[in-house]
Amino acid sequence: MNIGPYSFEEFIEKVISFHGSIAPGIVAGGIMVDIARANLPEGEFFDVICESQHCLPDAVQLLTPCTIGNRWLKIADTSRYALAFFNKYTGEGIRVYLDAGKLKGWPAIRAWFLKERPKKEQTLELILDEFKGAGTGIYSTHKVRVKPSYMTDSTKKRSAIALCPSCGEAYRRDLGETCPACRGKGPYL
Amino acid sequence: MNIGPYSFEEFIEKVISFHGSIAPGIVAGGIMVDIARANLPEGEFFDVICESQHCLPDAVQLLTPCTIGNRWLKIADTSRYALAFFNKYTGEGIRVYLDAGKLKGWPAIRAWFLKERPKKEQTLELILDEFKGAGTGIYSTHKVRVKPSYMTDSTKKRSAIALCPSCGEAYRRDLGETCPACRGKGPYL
Repeated sequence: MNIGPYSFEEFIEKVISFHGSIAPGIVAGGIMVDIARANLPEGEFFDVICESQHCLPDAVQLLTPCTIGNRWLKIADTSRYALAFFNKYTGEGIRVYLDAGKLKGWPAIRAWFLKERPKKEQTLELILDEFKGAGTGIYSTHKVRVKPSYMTDSTKKRSAIALCPSCGEAYRRDLGETCPACRGKGPYL
Repeated sequence: MNIGPYSFEEFIEKVISFHGSIAPGIVAGGIMVDIARANLPEGEFFDVICESQHCLPDAVQLLTPCTIGNRWLKIADTSRYALAFFNKYTGEGIRVYLDAGKLKGWPAIRAWFLKERPKKEQTLELILDEFKGAGTGIYSTHKVRVKPSYMTDSTKKRSAIALCPSCGEAYRRDLGETCPACRGKGPYL
């Protein structure tokens, strides 16, 4: 079984190097990326939405040109284990999710995915073996159209930059008279 | 000038490979990561907050173990060009920002950062040369304490997983009786 341009084992190495550990979710995510790609017109550019913040975004960042910092990857946290590849101008795309209804024959994946057992009672090797065995058989897909807020409006101009009269730092002028942090929306006490 | 373990030129190669293009913001971000690290106790584990979604997160993902998918990198979008490295248990850390007040001698960086000129009238090479020349002299730092919502509470249990009675997919049970997507909070029409 290959994941993207890598063998299963090579992909595991890539995951350890980028993500810091082998999380089963990234292996599932890698397979989901391949399924999404196989269902898209070849050569088409796409953006990606991840519906989970956990692990899944790192599979996308490892296997596609889409990253958080280049904004081709966006997160819409519904907590479902799903991703969508879509055309950023039409909004049309394909959604792939790990389908709990297809896990009957895969007890280790099921226990991990639905948290049926504490983590320390689960065996990573067993889960990975089941992912290899299950291949693409435990995922489902359907067509989606994303909300306009996730699409690229090529006529829209990016906001001007201003210096916040309160903190003095540069910020996006269209966000208000002062920067969001000076209105209590920053991450600090 | 080095950025992380790389020479300036090696870092540019890494940026192209991961982010897809040389964005000046990632070069600034790489230098900001080095400044943050130099101001932290050696060997200490840290989480990172980026205050911008543009470019900056990719510098962090390239140069630290913190990624979006492993949740050690979080985004709190104030639109300011700043990042904070902090201890996830105490919340104490250091914030680094590109300081508009220090750009007097660096017209190309200033034009890029404050969007004083249209993109096509700016020269990437000139901006990068100024970043090399300016070194760490155009950034400022101060101590911060992050809000508890960004810290790790080691006593907190992660939510149970349930199957949404509406869509049938697995989701975090503590988010409601149905999953957020089935309550209109998903990214699709």
